[in-house]
Amino acid sequence: MKTQVAIIGAGPSGLLLGQLLHNAGIDNVIVERQSPEYVLGRIRAGVLEQGMVDLLREAGASQRMDQEGLVHDGFELAFNGRCERIDLKELTGGKTVMVYGQTEVTRDLMEARQASGATTFYSVPDVQLHELKGEKPYLTFTLNGETVRLDCDHIAGCDGFHGVARKSIPQGVLTEFERVYPFGWLGVLADTPPVNEELIYANHQRGFALCSMRSPTRTRYYVQVGAEEKVEDWSDQRFWDELKSRLPAETAERLITGPSIEKSVAPLRSYVVEPMQYGHLFLVGDAAHIVPPTGAKGLNLAASDVSTLYRILLNVYCEGRHELLERYSQVCLRRIWKAERFSWWMTSMLHRFPDTDAFSRRIQQTELDYFVSSEAGRKTIAENYVGLPYEPIE
Amino acid sequence: MKTQVAIIGAGPSGLLLGQLLHNAGIDNVIVERQSPEYVLGRIRAGVLEQGMVDLLREAGASQRMDQEGLVHDGFELAFNGRCERIDLKELTGGKTVMVYGQTEVTRDLMEARQASGATTFYSVPDVQLHELKGEKPYLTFTLNGETVRLDCDHIAGCDGFHGVARKSIPQGVLTEFERVYPFGWLGVLADTPPVNEELIYANHQRGFALCSMRSPTRTRYYVQVGAEEKVEDWSDQRFWDELKSRLPAETAERLITGPSIEKSVAPLRSYVVEPMQYGHLFLVGDAAHIVPPTGAKGLNLAASDVSTLYRILLNVYCEGRHELLERYSQVCLRRIWKAERFSWWMTSMLHRFPDTDAFSRRIQQTELDYFVSSEAGRKTIAENYVGLPYEPIE
Repeated sequence: MKTQVAIIGAGPSGLLLGQLLHNAGIDNVIVERQSPEYVLGRIRAGVLEQGMVDLLREAGASQRMDQEGLVHDGFELAFNGRCERIDLKELTGGKTVMVYGQTEVTRDLMEARQASGATTFYSVPDVQLHELKGEKPYLTFTLNGETVRLDCDHIAGCDGFHGVARKSIPQGVLTEFERVYPFGWLGVLADTPPVNEELIYANHQRGFALCSMRSPTRTRYYVQVGAEEKVEDWSDQRFWDELKSRLPAETAERLITGPSIEKSVAPLRSYVVEPMQYGHLFLVGDAAHIVPPTGAKGLNLAASDVSTLYRILLNVYCEGRHELLERYSQVCLRRIWKAERFSWWMTSMLHRFPDTDAFSRRIQQTELDYFVSSEAGRKTIAENYVGLPYEPIE
Repeated sequence: MKTQVAIIGAGPSGLLLGQLLHNAGIDNVIVERQSPEYVLGRIRAGVLEQGMVDLLREAGASQRMDQEGLVHDGFELAFNGRCERIDLKELTGGKTVMVYGQTEVTRDLMEARQASGATTFYSVPDVQLHELKGEKPYLTFTLNGETVRLDCDHIAGCDGFHGVARKSIPQGVLTEFERVYPFGWLGVLADTPPVNEELIYANHQRGFALCSMRSPTRTRYYVQVGAEEKVEDWSDQRFWDELKSRLPAETAERLITGPSIEKSVAPLRSYVVEPMQYGHLFLVGDAAHIVPPTGAKGLNLAASDVSTLYRILLNVYCEGRHELLERYSQVCLRRIWKAERFSWWMTSMLHRFPDTDAFSRRIQQTELDYFVSSEAGRKTIAENYVGLPYEPIE
């Protein structure tokens, strides 16, 4: 088998890249280790930056999002018993975010891909990358019990943090940057109406809490828990009680609870590898970097990598600009580090840290107080939250 | 002896408060443990916020400052081989800072006090505070070998971090907030022309450096050193070499060196006590809080405490508004914590920390990069550097 771009991973990054390339007439094949049902079963992010919304529109996979997605003009920061609104639209000159679940994005992209007729192999194990530095790179994987070879020009590693793509780069090539936070997020999905029209990020002495949503009838709530916490120890009742204790009283009173549909604990980590290219392999999204979820940058950062790789490949195939391939890593990393910084900052400002002394706690409260009370401070939060501009590829 | 306000300490805070009260017709006596020569021998800060400049004018002690002080419209941040200017004037709608040494401020205030005829006792040991919670507070101290008693309505503790005022408050009353940084600043004063018209704050992998000045012919330079570093181990040559190695090449080439007039190592500390009032005693400036010198907030913060106490006492004596005395601590602390935050942030962003891992280092570089490249980010730096507005007393 032969294609121009082999894409590993049929999550939102791989599917979005595939769709954009396909629409531009660049042949591509997606190879996914898991089944479509498994991929759709992952509950992930739900806040899309304008840049990602535009990219989904460009990919022709935005029809349902544009109908059902919730445009949010702002969000709330709760701390010290106060609730302060960050007016994204006003502070950024009109930019907003779109609340629309990652699962729904994936589903829309899957349907668009199916309609396009482009090839996707699901449930194929043993994906291996070959000749990444050679003349003719290729993938092998197992299909119906037989090893299949897929020749290609370029390989996009869209297979996440635990995927095979990054692991195929020889030892010593990549430099890793990592921070593991000493806590996790316990998340609950429920078919209840949201407690607030907009998201609420809460700093509380018991720990961080987040009130988010997927739709007007489906909510996603989180509370900070210990990194080793077991989901079995959290009954629905315990979760709702803990969440309420961390919200401003007036918000807690409005909260409507209900049975959880999904409940899970996720660790918080910051991670970046440099560079993001090795020969013909390009790492995209979680394969190269992880942000803690505070600030909702993970999926959006994957989308900006997709945009960069897509624009470079377009120039390569249409204009013969092969030299741009070498710029991929540098262009991506500029924006990635800024999003890493913002996610680290939001995490640092909103969570309770086990080793926090009295001075640090006051600094944390003052940082929140200063940033929300200064117009310039609010603007820094807003411009990062809606997403900094995509970097030019040259 | 009897006065309305007894002021402990004849540094710039005590003298400024004394002068403002005297001009308003409120009788006050200053008691200082050291000689005038000793007080003037301390080399300290040199960047005055607009608020402090205005206060010195109000005190009638600004004539020489207005003639000789250097108005700075901006400063430079050097990092990653770049030098980026923070245009204070443009970013804050016209605000600037005044470069004028603390020694000169003290000298001007001393002269103004002498001219006013108000009483100052220098070189008086054994200062003790009595009846702070009683009806009739008073000080005692030793003058010409005899114990003198000074009765008063209120006591202002302007005697610095190591002074007797804070130590006279009983154990258990104050809550302390502290951060000791694992490094110090080695400072050199020299009669050389400044390397740059404006200050340069430099983040370098060898550590922080600062190019400052006191006048067009007198410079003050600093390099970050280990907390235990001995000044004897630093020849002038070693200092200049180290400084040059931390500046952008083009700046280092312009640097004119010369013999040091003064050379010393200062530790870096963040410290706040709450509350700042105990009965009739009011802590002012360093007696209640210390900031690391990055950002030049120490003297300016003392001036804003002076302003708050002065405005409250004016209301007490002229309008009988005694209830305002209870607000002193709360009003001061609001601004103090914001200045503590800024000083902590500047220190965190610009210094090399011994335990910094690769991730932290990149976050530090990205923080600088983001804040100088975003207009909102630059505004947050500028509005803090020129000084946030003084808080209203009610």
